[in-house]
Amino acid sequence: MEDTDDDVPLILTWDDANSGLLSEETERGDENGGGGYDIVNNQVIPTPGPPPNYRSHNASLQQSWEMNYQEAAIYLQEGENNDKFFTHPRNPKALAAYLFAHNHLFYMMELLTGLLLMVLSLCEAPAVPSLRLDVYVHATLELLALVMVAFELCMKLRWLGFHTFIRHKRTMVKTCVLLLQFVEAIVVLIRQTSHLRVTRALRPIFLVDCRYCGAVRRNLRQIFQSLPPFIDILLLLLFFMVIFAILGFCLFSPNTSDPYFNTLENSIVSLFVLVTTANFPDVMMPAYSRNRWSCVFFIVYLSIELYFIMNLLLAVVFDTFNGVEKMKFKSLLLHKRSAIDHAFQLLVSRQRPMGVSLKQFDGLMRFYRPRMSSRDRFLTYKALNTAGAPMLSLDDFYKFYEVIGLKWKARRSGEHWFDDLPHTTFLIFKGINLLVKSKAFQYTMCGFSWSRMVPWSYIVFLTIYGVEVLLKITGLGPLAYFSSGWNLFDFSVTVFAFLGLIALAFDMEPFYFIVVLRPLQLLRLFKIKQRYRNVLDTMFELFPRMASLGLTLIIFYYSFAIVGMEFFADVVYPNCCNTSTVADSYRQINVTIGNRTVLDEGYYYLNNFNNILSSFVTLFELTVVNNWYITMEGVTSMTTHWSRLYFMTFYIVTMVVMTIIVAFILDAFVFRMNYSRKNKEPLLDPEDENGIVFEAEVSRDEALATLELYKKTCPGLSSLNSLQGVLLAMDRSGSSSLVYLGRRSRTKSDLSMKMYEEEIQEWYAEYSRENLPQSDRSLVERELDIPPPCHEHES
Amino acid sequence: MEDTDDDVPLILTWDDANSGLLSEETERGDENGGGGYDIVNNQVIPTPGPPPNYRSHNASLQQSWEMNYQEAAIYLQEGENNDKFFTHPRNPKALAAYLFAHNHLFYMMELLTGLLLMVLSLCEAPAVPSLRLDVYVHATLELLALVMVAFELCMKLRWLGFHTFIRHKRTMVKTCVLLLQFVEAIVVLIRQTSHLRVTRALRPIFLVDCRYCGAVRRNLRQIFQSLPPFIDILLLLLFFMVIFAILGFCLFSPNTSDPYFNTLENSIVSLFVLVTTANFPDVMMPAYSRNRWSCVFFIVYLSIELYFIMNLLLAVVFDTFNGVEKMKFKSLLLHKRSAIDHAFQLLVSRQRPMGVSLKQFDGLMRFYRPRMSSRDRFLTYKALNTAGAPMLSLDDFYKFYEVIGLKWKARRSGEHWFDDLPHTTFLIFKGINLLVKSKAFQYTMCGFSWSRMVPWSYIVFLTIYGVEVLLKITGLGPLAYFSSGWNLFDFSVTVFAFLGLIALAFDMEPFYFIVVLRPLQLLRLFKIKQRYRNVLDTMFELFPRMASLGLTLIIFYYSFAIVGMEFFADVVYPNCCNTSTVADSYRQINVTIGNRTVLDEGYYYLNNFNNILSSFVTLFELTVVNNWYITMEGVTSMTTHWSRLYFMTFYIVTMVVMTIIVAFILDAFVFRMNYSRKNKEPLLDPEDENGIVFEAEVSRDEALATLELYKKTCPGLSSLNSLQGVLLAMDRSGSSSLVYLGRRSRTKSDLSMKMYEEEIQEWYAEYSRENLPQSDRSLVERELDIPPPCHEHES
Repeated sequence: MEDTDDDVPLILTWDDANSGLLSEETERGDENGGGGYDIVNNQVIPTPGPPPNYRSHNASLQQSWEMNYQEAAIYLQEGENNDKFFTHPRNPKALAAYLFAHNHLFYMMELLTGLLLMVLSLCEAPAVPSLRLDVYVHATLELLALVMVAFELCMKLRWLGFHTFIRHKRTMVKTCVLLLQFVEAIVVLIRQTSHLRVTRALRPIFLVDCRYCGAVRRNLRQIFQSLPPFIDILLLLLFFMVIFAILGFCLFSPNTSDPYFNTLENSIVSLFVLVTTANFPDVMMPAYSRNRWSCVFFIVYLSIELYFIMNLLLAVVFDTFNGVEKMKFKSLLLHKRSAIDHAFQLLVSRQRPMGVSLKQFDGLMRFYRPRMSSRDRFLTYKALNTAGAPMLSLDDFYKFYEVIGLKWKARRSGEHWFDDLPHTTFLIFKGINLLVKSKAFQYTMCGFSWSRMVPWSYIVFLTIYGVEVLLKITGLGPLAYFSSGWNLFDFSVTVFAFLGLIALAFDMEPFYFIVVLRPLQLLRLFKIKQRYRNVLDTMFELFPRMASLGLTLIIFYYSFAIVGMEFFADVVYPNCCNTSTVADSYRQINVTIGNRTVLDEGYYYLNNFNNILSSFVTLFELTVVNNWYITMEGVTSMTTHWSRLYFMTFYIVTMVVMTIIVAFILDAFVFRMNYSRKNKEPLLDPEDENGIVFEAEVSRDEALATLELYKKTCPGLSSLNSLQGVLLAMDRSGSSSLVYLGRRSRTKSDLSMKMYEEEIQEWYAEYSRENLPQSDRSLVERELDIPPPCHEHES
Repeated sequence: MEDTDDDVPLILTWDDANSGLLSEETERGDENGGGGYDIVNNQVIPTPGPPPNYRSHNASLQQSWEMNYQEAAIYLQEGENNDKFFTHPRNPKALAAYLFAHNHLFYMMELLTGLLLMVLSLCEAPAVPSLRLDVYVHATLELLALVMVAFELCMKLRWLGFHTFIRHKRTMVKTCVLLLQFVEAIVVLIRQTSHLRVTRALRPIFLVDCRYCGAVRRNLRQIFQSLPPFIDILLLLLFFMVIFAILGFCLFSPNTSDPYFNTLENSIVSLFVLVTTANFPDVMMPAYSRNRWSCVFFIVYLSIELYFIMNLLLAVVFDTFNGVEKMKFKSLLLHKRSAIDHAFQLLVSRQRPMGVSLKQFDGLMRFYRPRMSSRDRFLTYKALNTAGAPMLSLDDFYKFYEVIGLKWKARRSGEHWFDDLPHTTFLIFKGINLLVKSKAFQYTMCGFSWSRMVPWSYIVFLTIYGVEVLLKITGLGPLAYFSSGWNLFDFSVTVFAFLGLIALAFDMEPFYFIVVLRPLQLLRLFKIKQRYRNVLDTMFELFPRMASLGLTLIIFYYSFAIVGMEFFADVVYPNCCNTSTVADSYRQINVTIGNRTVLDEGYYYLNNFNNILSSFVTLFELTVVNNWYITMEGVTSMTTHWSRLYFMTFYIVTMVVMTIIVAFILDAFVFRMNYSRKNKEPLLDPEDENGIVFEAEVSRDEALATLELYKKTCPGLSSLNSLQGVLLAMDRSGSSSLVYLGRRSRTKSDLSMKMYEEEIQEWYAEYSRENLPQSDRSLVERELDIPPPCHEHES
């Protein structure tokens, strides 16, 4: 609050108009390729030439500060999004492009373009019948979408500069794919017919590259990192497979009635399928019927491959995954710390290089979170400033990311949302609350939900639940209400119960609404039993991650579906595949058995690649693995033997992804259980689980001073309303200070912070050891106001 | 060595002839039920009555010492085998029975009786055709075996005393089962025909109870401990299954061509089978062919049940398993410590209550390891006595179990087994050794093993390997050679290669010997690649545990096989089950398709319960899960719907066991990888992996003094040979002292010791805190020679 208006930023950024030396610096950084544009390079201090107050008039100084705020905000955003600093915009032109490319509108456009391109495959050549489009329509749409992508890439080029652009691998791959697709789309338009376009399988790249799919990109990276040990064990698996295949061929090929081992190729395929167990007793049966001891071959093979090596695969992936998770957490944490370091340097002034004042913090926040109210900006500052000093030190500032997501609210006197209501109403709601939470009530409710008729008591129970839910939503506000997993759970269970009731009231024919939706009431019991609550808690925490893993799987599906459609569309049909061993499954004819005639329907012709939706269902069936060889053999018998490669590759890819999903679920649960064990955390009542809470006390004087400050810096009235609201609240309650609580739900990162507490200190120590010599020296320089020698910057 | 002959034991044991007070003590312990016969109770000090040297003549004193040695050895054995102390023999009569029941002859008898009883089922009623026996033969055999079991139980009763016997749950269960089997066997003998004898499923109890099956008992205990969380999640699984079954019934039952959902029972069974994926695309097909969107039902169901809840099951079991493993390790560790405490109290003398002298240690070892040579006894003592003090303190003695398994050998000057040979020979062997170990040699070898013909170079390579193996065996001695997993590995690979060569030399028809056995040479590559070596190392360590888990599974199989044979023997046959949906799989007829006639052989009638061997194969097929419902439906259609209960129960039981096996493999590998990461252990060359090594230096004087001592205590010449050998070796080498190295391979327990280092210290602290007040007090008393007040013992 003791800010003077003539504070000069320690570092001036993007300043090409004034100060020759500074702009030289910037250019050098540009030529340098940006790789060195890190914390060391960033300590660019306006050296000998101009005096400390070389830009004396306030307007220009104000402008420099604004620019610094913006760059600091960009650094912090980069820290949050894990963007590498070498893509940091390095001059005002780049900044404009950066700002254009970094807002939700642009992200949305990216996402929609990516989605449009993927959805196009519904309408292209082997199209879903009802969605078929003419060639020129979908090709034009595709060209349009590709132009959009090209435009996005141009913006990126402008922002990154050519050198950084071509060094950024992901972007380069995207560019190449774009060019290819362009050429192909034009060829399609000219020929007015689709050719074999396997490259469409690369379309997900456009979706994956968009901002909102960061989690999918991380998953893909994690999958690739887990690959090397996976492949090692896979080779072991294949090695034994080949040895057993040769042995099996030698042992069983004399038996002519055994179709599984009659050639070496069949032998290998049979044993590959056997690893998935999909053909199990069948593959053994012909040999077993000849000689009972031949089962030993299969038992030994399955014991080695299925029960030992496959588990080994899981163990190795699980172990690697664990390590990768920890390393990822470490690098994210250190990247954030580095971003904070950068931002801090930009926010301190030459006069006071050791701290950030409220004015500067507020300037930063106006860029970082433009929608945040002035009250919340102030409260965030207070939450950071734990020592109560006039300025934020670097150590205070390191907590930035912990504090930034908090939702602020004045502390209520009680624990319930209805505590503020008048007394009588309060008592009623208190009663409902106690009733709904009581175990007796819940058990009775569950008991009633099983009876077929609708007793009035059931309606009464449900009404009570309904009232509770409605009141809670109005009391907390829908946003706050639905942000808690348990509230969402309560809500959906109650809504389902109501649906059941309504279905009954209207006497709707399908009585399953009642039979199915009522038992869902039993889900309420999960809140009572400790283990289920743990499981559901973990599930709520895992959900975003699970969703992104699901999306990753869908992207793999998409690529395989395109390839499948290009090669296998319309290949299988009823009564095809008569030459294969699985002809039965594709049969659709009348068969005479003895003297009865029945329709023998094999149905497997439905598992085809005739359009993208069918392909997805077929691929899901292949993922579940059971009987997948019937689909493989059917397609193979109608095409070439090489088709098997497609199915086997798909099996191995889904095996990788599935193993990682299993490892992920295992890891998450074991981590959480270890966490609660380590912290001896009494397992909390779901309602009391507050997540992360920060506290900030605001006195009337502070609030007034802040209001003054804000009025000076940004005189727009609307943004000050919230701060005036604080003063009004104080007047109403008659107290001279008010305590605010900032809450957010706990994330995996918070748990990791606590789990790796000791290691984190080591990482920090290591990190500052690496960065210390430079920052330490410049610190001393700053204090003594000695400009560093110029050649330091050249090296 | 400064032992005097008139040392008096601090505690006198099993002494019913002298010392009234002592025998009173013993009796009290007996009445007390033995539960209190622990370390506290054990500090029974000969109080007021007789003077310290109340038995002055040496012979009787010697006899008391011998008894003490024996009891200490028994305590240490109990610690090693994890036998509870309340089964400790408490008087000379019990001791006789104890000794009778605790030797390998008796154990062998137990094992053989158990095996005989189990093997009998090969010859009983639904017998394996070639092994069928008459009813009176197998019933007589059974009676004989049961009499043996009864005899064993009598010995146990004698040793434990009636009170302890009936409090020992496992023994009581065994007695009940024995009585039942007796009655049934007699009934069979009288009726001369077997009745429905489901109780035969309990026979594995006799096998499990025998001494050598301790690991199986531990596995069973671990399975039961993992059950509660497993059941919780299983209920969740079943809950969703029922809800989806109702929904599926409502949605799909209108479709008359859908046999999977036409009744609610079928609906539940279909979805149960679907969790195992065994009927996957088929169960969806009829609905899918009607309406393509019905696949959503199945995808949602599988996502919830198979991909979420089943993984959850694994996570929960894995987590519980981890905890149980650690607790088991803790209790074993503390039990051993307690056993050592007991033994130590029995070995110290009244004159020197703080230490155990060599004479007493040697006395103990003569009972504990009667086969151990006098040299090894002495070296073990030296290894324990790290401080070089004249006596072993309690802290030294705590290392007892670490030292006891060591194999002693004089330290050789070099690292190779051939270092002792003359120089020329040495150089040749050194060359071979270097050659065989070189990567180039191994790669070349592997390259050659793929070519079809036998180049002479292949024979040359193989000869070199063969010579290496032969020389190593002769050099190290077969026992030492085969005790290393890697040597065993080398040996078998080389032998297989030779077999291939011989097969070729004799031009044997089945050329697969060459084709299969030669690729096995590739296994040598595993030694080169780090990850495989890790995997194989872990495998060698895991092997005993894996074997015991396999045995546990076989015991479950046996029980289920008996039940299956009793109910389903001869139920399925070719062309049965025409009323079921799986009739095709049991068909064995000529079928006309269009205008072709083919033999349609379903083979599934081979998966039956007609004798115990077929049952085992059938159960293995059920374990692999794929197509298990065909067997289930076939049997169900020929019997009642309740048969499904058998198959579903079996599925759930194997799921438990399999999940635990997976958890076990996961745990073992992750543990090992964590271990090598934590200890930054450079991953050792398999040949250099020494395991645990202790060192003991023996000087000539020591050896002479020890020889003197041994000559006095046990004048039998044969046992002294080994010690005289030490003196001879010293003479030969001309040095005045000789260093001996004791080695043993590293076990899981050693790894755990290092992993839980810190926790172990806590456990010990906690353990001694619990036992300290008493032991501390009595320590002081012993020093002051003040008898403790009698009532202390009564409380």
